[in-house]
Amino acid sequence: MIILGVDPGSVLCGYGVVEHNGRNIALVEYGVIEAKRRHQDFNQRLKEIFSRLNSVIDRANPDAAAFEALFYSKNAQSLIKLSHARAAAILAVTNNDIPIIEYSAREIKKSVTGRGSASKEQVQFMVRNLLGIEETPQFFDATDALAVAICHVLRKNHNSKKSTSWADYLKEHPELIISK
Amino acid sequence: MIILGVDPGSVLCGYGVVEHNGRNIALVEYGVIEAKRRHQDFNQRLKEIFSRLNSVIDRANPDAAAFEALFYSKNAQSLIKLSHARAAAILAVTNNDIPIIEYSAREIKKSVTGRGSASKEQVQFMVRNLLGIEETPQFFDATDALAVAICHVLRKNHNSKKSTSWADYLKEHPELIISK
Repeated sequence: MIILGVDPGSVLCGYGVVEHNGRNIALVEYGVIEAKRRHQDFNQRLKEIFSRLNSVIDRANPDAAAFEALFYSKNAQSLIKLSHARAAAILAVTNNDIPIIEYSAREIKKSVTGRGSASKEQVQFMVRNLLGIEETPQFFDATDALAVAICHVLRKNHNSKKSTSWADYLKEHPELIISK
Repeated sequence: MIILGVDPGSVLCGYGVVEHNGRNIALVEYGVIEAKRRHQDFNQRLKEIFSRLNSVIDRANPDAAAFEALFYSKNAQSLIKLSHARAAAILAVTNNDIPIIEYSAREIKKSVTGRGSASKEQVQFMVRNLLGIEETPQFFDATDALAVAICHVLRKNHNSKKSTSWADYLKEHPELIISK
């Protein structure tokens, strides 16, 4: 099963694709869709997110896509921009008839690190360890997207196998632990 | 010149198309894209707005699209949904390489009624009079969309002919006044 995780933002939209076959989660690809120029027309940015995510979907052919649920933001203007960018990403997915599953930020962090209040650095650390990513990705957006995809794999696993978190998942998959 | 006006909402997305050739503004079509069921999955609604607005664009072949600018909302959840719906509509337009022009609610009302604080009823009344729409449209969303399109026509006119509002436009076009 191939899962696309998306972490949409109006300037950077992270995406990550993982493959899960029974026991293993493997990295397929990850990256960010970056606005060509910071001051690019916002509506053109939406088109760019839409069309570039479409290319990722064409390449990866995911079975499902996982997004972080969006609840609130302190700043209304940021919330408007974020929502627009998120909708562009959602449309790229739904236009390809791929189901979307949403998880709260807390669920994602808890699944991946064992703690709902984990920092971005902790999430990135766990994602890199789990998927064997050696370089430090330039943007958290890409590893955050992978975290959403991993969350979906673990949650699906949980529903069928009663594995509740990344800690449990590691217990069941000691071969995945990379000793440091 | 054919102008598409869009009044996007998450349940109802109004659209209106007008044609402007030198002196006259004529109605081409208007309507609403309504969620099939109120409880339809929200991401599927986005897809519906996107694909149905695409059909309108295919039929009407507009030269430009006008949207109301979105600034704030009291309720963050409404703002999120509205922004998602608006982005779906914007994408339908930008994917067809049609330029988008945005106007504030105040500019739109002022252009169409002469008053920036006009009510929805007043806007609808003026839109119906200007375009000779005899029936009372079921939803304000459709006439609001026509108002955005008319605003664009008047503002373009203004830039080239120094006509500043709907009142001025009427003065210049007495043939448009329907006596009651």
